[in-house]
This record gives sequence, structure tokens and C-alpha cells, in this order.
Amino acid sequence: MSQTILIIGAGKSATVLIQYLQQKAVENDWYILLADGDEAIAKNKWNNAPNGTALGIDIENNLNRQNLVQKADIVVSMMPAQLHFLVAKDCLQFGKPLFTASYVDDNMRSIATEIESKQLLFLCEMGLDPGIDHMSAMAIIDEIHEKGGKITSFKSHCGGLIAPESDDNPWHYKITWNPRNVVLAGAGGTARYRENGRTKFIPYHQLFERITHVDLGESGKFEGYANRDSLKYATLYGLDNIPTLFRGTFRKDGFCEAWSALIYLGLTDETTFIPNASDTTWKELIASLVPENVQPQDWIAQQLNLSQRAQDMLLWLGIFDDEPLDIHEGSPALALQRLIEEKWRLDDGDKDMIVMWHRFRYHNRGNKFEIQSRLICEGDDTTYTAMSKTVGLPIAIAARLMMKGELTLTGVHLPVIPEIYEPVLNELQSCGIVFQETENALP
Amino acid sequence: MSQTILIIGAGKSATVLIQYLQQKAVENDWYILLADGDEAIAKNKWNNAPNGTALGIDIENNLNRQNLVQKADIVVSMMPAQLHFLVAKDCLQFGKPLFTASYVDDNMRSIATEIESKQLLFLCEMGLDPGIDHMSAMAIIDEIHEKGGKITSFKSHCGGLIAPESDDNPWHYKITWNPRNVVLAGAGGTARYRENGRTKFIPYHQLFERITHVDLGESGKFEGYANRDSLKYATLYGLDNIPTLFRGTFRKDGFCEAWSALIYLGLTDETTFIPNASDTTWKELIASLVPENVQPQDWIAQQLNLSQRAQDMLLWLGIFDDEPLDIHEGSPALALQRLIEEKWRLDDGDKDMIVMWHRFRYHNRGNKFEIQSRLICEGDDTTYTAMSKTVGLPIAIAARLMMKGELTLTGVHLPVIPEIYEPVLNELQSCGIVFQETENALP
Repeated sequence: MSQTILIIGAGKSATVLIQYLQQKAVENDWYILLADGDEAIAKNKWNNAPNGTALGIDIENNLNRQNLVQKADIVVSMMPAQLHFLVAKDCLQFGKPLFTASYVDDNMRSIATEIESKQLLFLCEMGLDPGIDHMSAMAIIDEIHEKGGKITSFKSHCGGLIAPESDDNPWHYKITWNPRNVVLAGAGGTARYRENGRTKFIPYHQLFERITHVDLGESGKFEGYANRDSLKYATLYGLDNIPTLFRGTFRKDGFCEAWSALIYLGLTDETTFIPNASDTTWKELIASLVPENVQPQDWIAQQLNLSQRAQDMLLWLGIFDDEPLDIHEGSPALALQRLIEEKWRLDDGDKDMIVMWHRFRYHNRGNKFEIQSRLICEGDDTTYTAMSKTVGLPIAIAARLMMKGELTLTGVHLPVIPEIYEPVLNELQSCGIVFQETENALP
Repeated sequence: MSQTILIIGAGKSATVLIQYLQQKAVENDWYILLADGDEAIAKNKWNNAPNGTALGIDIENNLNRQNLVQKADIVVSMMPAQLHFLVAKDCLQFGKPLFTASYVDDNMRSIATEIESKQLLFLCEMGLDPGIDHMSAMAIIDEIHEKGGKITSFKSHCGGLIAPESDDNPWHYKITWNPRNVVLAGAGGTARYRENGRTKFIPYHQLFERITHVDLGESGKFEGYANRDSLKYATLYGLDNIPTLFRGTFRKDGFCEAWSALIYLGLTDETTFIPNASDTTWKELIASLVPENVQPQDWIAQQLNLSQRAQDMLLWLGIFDDEPLDIHEGSPALALQRLIEEKWRLDDGDKDMIVMWHRFRYHNRGNKFEIQSRLICEGDDTTYTAMSKTVGLPIAIAARLMMKGELTLTGVHLPVIPEIYEPVLNELQSCGIVFQETENALP
């Protein structure tokens, strides 16, 4: 009987992963079980390909789930993060390797010792961010450390954006991933990073004001806001005492000033309930957020000293319009989400774009150097998106390596070790996911 | 055997309550049991007065607590709010009336039907704010409604402040109550009120920018920021459809602009952990909160367009000084709390001041009127504070009325009904807690 890969979850981000493994299954005579909570989605994605079958799964049903896990040689979970642990426990019980693109959480850590003692590999954070960010950074970090260099600064940004040829609105942004996460980006917390040896903090109300401008030439101008915790991976990356460590998220030039205005107004607030939301217009919602007896557009422009460009962006978005909110009930954040889902909708034929950019500074034998590394990946269309390629291919490639016996690690791992990142980065390159690297001496 | 009042909690806010009930106990031959988690505090407060005794209580010990509750005819709880429910359940079990100055919470609501069916009175929110605010407002609201008037606007503010003769720092503020609540005032939420028929919201980052200025003549100039939920009592006050309803908190003139700067900097953030706090100076903490390569004082002044006065207030507070934080570990909010506990310390002989101000607008038979009502109450010293008088006397007076059989209500109540507020407001007046009321016709 053929070796079997069980893929659970056949949503948007699994498209390219499925396509890649279908091809490898034919080449290697493997068999694929593609399971999704919605059988129709699985069957549609599978599209009668050879070497496998699509089926429904009731993920909360232990018998159903464990029956499938037992049939597999390895398990790939592309489900929402909170459901992974059900599958993880099955994989532990039946001795199956597990691959996910999600963050290692406390649940996963709680069974790490058992996973190791059963000599299983659970490979997590194997998508784009987290995933490709780890691998592309570690390849450079290990190289610098091997030649004796000392890294003094590492700044890294990643953004899921819209490709230049499909970039046709004044925000230069469209919804290419989870819109709720776009609205709540950075909300409800203080960002932490390190600069020149000092831990620095940025409260949410300042987050989109204190941005980094990055000019990537032909690829465009970008601005980055800080991720919640830039220091999370310092130890894992071997950068414990690095003076400057910053991880951020890219938007295109001009976005952050206008987004700051939405935050200031309270439109990203998820905790407040709009009374009679279904009978409320945007004009009325804005009136409820600004002081009495002001002209809202003028007031916000004056409060934040907004550029004309940012004012025009707010106007274009329609927050001052006498149009109904597109929600029955909920918060300003939900109303804003519905608005951007409409205004920043991906049209047929639109292409998305992933931009990842690392900048390392290091010194070696008295000399100073800077390495910049960038990935620009465009989608083919609204199905074979850059997001689906970059999230799905790393995990698909790792699954292939495992099936071919080329991964011998055991335990819970992130892709920060050469045995994983070297072959995966090489194969990503063959798939067109290529980092451009430049190195310069610094004065 | 004498009738017995059990008072649980002998802290600062119980001082005047104890004094009042000691006197009434002598006059009426009642007996008082004064219990505190710290027996020494209870004995010190009791000070060998007649008609009672002081003792320790282990509030988590059911036997100890229930033994005391069973001995009482009525129970007064001046403990921290989260401990009331232990006593409330005992009072329900043993059929004792309960008096507190704390908010009615879900726990209390969950037993309201049982309290009513046992024909007991549990009187809550019987302090200053909540307490005197309810009573003084309802006396006017009921009067307007009785003469057929229709209230169109009710704005109310209350502040625990420093008396003019002790007001000797540029913030015009000292710590006269819980300093943690001073630091976290408004934090972590969006304020809600109603203005001209529209529900309005103020996010925390705008809270101290969008203030109401109130000039009370000789008593001083004040500025009020919005409480979390001004609409909470609309139904209870019989003001369901009132166009304008605002409840706020007073600071003295100038405070809010400078406090806004502390919020903007992130100094009221309780969620962030300062690394090596015990080795960190204020100058260093501020450096961790502002962008690299800026002069912090200039930066914050420019970001918020601060007046010279506000800049001087920040400088005076010492947040830019090269002095150690006075904490071993914790958040910026905790560091700020320690700083203001020191800089805004109440000196010996300092007097605090409670200011409460209501403004009603109503129309009646085609004419429009405005009623303003204000309470200014000063403390005698740092023991017999205005806070202790205004929090303690309402509950003490209500307890006295109950002991004399003059309260026949049953169930869970707030002091919004004439049977409670009329005799209590009258007795408060005898104790020097007097509202000044003015009424004017409006054009």
C-alpha cells in the first residue's frame, strides 16, 4: 500500500500546498487524503486528481478524526490554529509526524516532551510569517555567525499587499488575507522591540504614527509598524544580546497616517456596541465619535495635523458618507471591517503581493557590513495567490522531505535549523520564491 | 440584650462612619461589633469607646464570619467590593439587613429574588459616588417630574480633590483616595454618554483631551472627563429618553492636558513589563517610551502641542529626572503610581475636598429652566477627611434609620427612592454636607 499524506483543511491558504503535493504524489506514488469540515470544499479543491481522494471530516468527532489519522504516514494541518491540538494529540497517540503553519502555543509545549520521547517530528510555524521569515533570517544569521561576525542590528518586515498592477485605490491596499486581523492589527496592546541596547515600547495609539520608511526601489516604497513583540525569537535566533531587534509589518507608503486617524477616531474599537447599528449611517457613527458641534473632517484633520493625502484617503473610504453601516449589530471595528471588505475588495484578476525585507548589520574583524535581503512574490490570480504560495509551499515541501526520509529530526521544531531551512529554501527557489540579497561594507 | 450593629472593615473610609455610629449607639443603647482583618486597626479605630468592641475577623473563614453575622441585627460592610458577597450570603442565610457603599454587581443581582422573598433590605451604593450622587440627583429629578417638568439635559461631575488651602503643587492634585485608581482612571475602555439625542463615545486616548470646563466661582475652576458609562443609571433615574446625559469626574483646571501627555507616553499602561525596573531611572523609562534620537521633553510637547504650563507640570513631576524608579518590578503604570504617591502626597494638616456638581435643564409649560446644585465638602485633617465623611455618613445614617425602624423597604435597593434619600439628605445637612442649589429661567 502507498504511503499516505493526510491534509486536514482545504481552505484558501491550502490551494498551492494541495497542488504541489498532488504533483509529488503522482511522481512518488503516494496517496493523499484531503479532508475538510465542508466535504464540498475538499472535493472542489481536489478536482478528481489521481493518487488521492477528498472527504469530509467532523473534526470534533474523535472516532472520525482518529480513523483518518491512523491511515496516514504524516499529517498536515491547515485548520484554524485553535483546532490543531485535537489533531496533535491523535498524532502523538498514533505516532504520526505533524506539520502546521501555526504558532507553537502552550498546548503544543505541554506535550513536547512526550513527542520527543516517541521520536516524532512536529514541525510548526512552517508558513510565511511565521515560517519563511524564520528560514530566510536564520540562513543569513548562521552564515554571519559561522564566519565569526557579530550581529548588531536585525530589522525585519513582512506585508501581505496588493501587486502594483492591481493597486488602484488611494490606500494602496486590498484585502488579501483575514480582514478582521487587518482592522485589529496592533489593537489592545503595547508593542515591544529593542533599539541601541534599550527595550522600547509603543502604545497602540502611537503605533501607526511611529513607522519605519523603507524604499525598495522598483518594488515600491513601504512603511512598517512594529509587531507586538519583536523580542519573542531573540533567543531562538541566537541573538540574545543584540542591541537592535525590530520586527514589523509593511503597508504601502501613505497608509499609516490615514490608518492612525481611524484609530484616533475609535473605529478600530471592538469593545463598544453601536446602538441601533442597522439604522445608523457612517455619518452618524462618525458624529458619535467626535465632539459635538465640530465638522468631523476638519476636526480630525486638525487634531492629527493630517496631510491632504490622508484627508483624501479618509474621504474616499466613505466614513463621512450618509450611507448605512453594513452591519446589523456590533462594534465600530466590525463596521469598519465590512467597509474595507467592500472598498478594498480584491477584483477578479487582481494579484496580491508578499513583501519580506530583512536588514542585518554586523561587524567582523573590525569592519562593518550590512546585508539586505528581500522577497517579492506576486500571486497569479485570486486563487493562486502569493499568500497561498508562501503560506502553503514551505509546509508542502517539508512534508515531501519527510515522506522521502530526508528529515530525521525529532521533537517539536520551528524551521530555524539548517537541516530544515536549507532544503526548503532551495526548493522554494525552484518554485519562484526567491530572496534577493545584497551586502555592503559600512563606513 | 442591646440591638447590635456589625461593622466589617475599619479602614480609612470607615473613620467618620464609626464615629457617627459610636455616638448614636450611646444615645440609643445599641451595641457595635467593629471587625477588621487586622485586629490592631479595628482596636485603634475603636479607641476604647463605650457600647461596643473591636475584634479581628478572618473574612474567608465561614465559621468566624457567620458567628459574627449571627450576633448582629444589621450588618455594615466597608470592605473592598470583591469581599462583600461572602457577607451578603451570610446575611441572606441568617436574615440580616446589609448596607454597603459598593456597586451592585452580578453576584448581588443573582440573589436579589431570595433577598426580597425573605423580606430583607440590602442597601447598596450608599457612599459618595455612588451614593450621594444618586440621592442629590433624585431629589431634584423627582421634584421636576412632580411639577410636570420634562428634563432635557443632566450633566453631573464629582471629584475627590485637595482643598484650596492645601493646594500647593502645579497639578493642584494630591492623593486623597486609591492611587491605583487615579493612575488607571478611564484606562482600557471607551467612555459612553448621550448628547442632543445621540450616544457618543470617547476612546481612552482622547479621554483627557475632550473635557468639560466648569467654573464654580469662589470654589474654583474645574475640568471634567467622562466616566466609563454615563448611561448606566438612565432607567433607574427615570431619564430613559433624555437627550443629554453625562457623568464625569472633576480635576482642577489644567490637570487634564498634562495627564493626557502621560497617557500618550504610555505611562498609564499596566500591561507592559519594564525590564530591570529596579535598575531603571525615570529618564531611562521615558527614553524607552519615545522614538530614538529625540529630546523627550521637546518631543512630547510638540506631539501634543502642549502649553508651557503642561510642560512645566511634567517637568515638576520628575518623569524626565535621572532618578531611580521606586519599584522592584512592574509596569509603567505602577512606576507612575509610586511617583505620584510621593509627589502628590497628602502632608500633615492637609485637607481634602469633595466637589459634586449637577446641572439640569428642563422645560415646563413652555418655559425653560436650569437648576445647578453643588456640594463642596472639606476635610478637617488627614483623618477626618471629606472622603471619609461623604463615603461613610450616608451608610451610617441609613444604618441608624434601620435600627430605629424607619426603613421598611425590602429587597436590593439603591438610594434613589424618597423613603431613603429624604431622611438621609436631611441628616447629611445636619452633619454639614450641604448642597447649594440655584435655579434660573433660560431664554
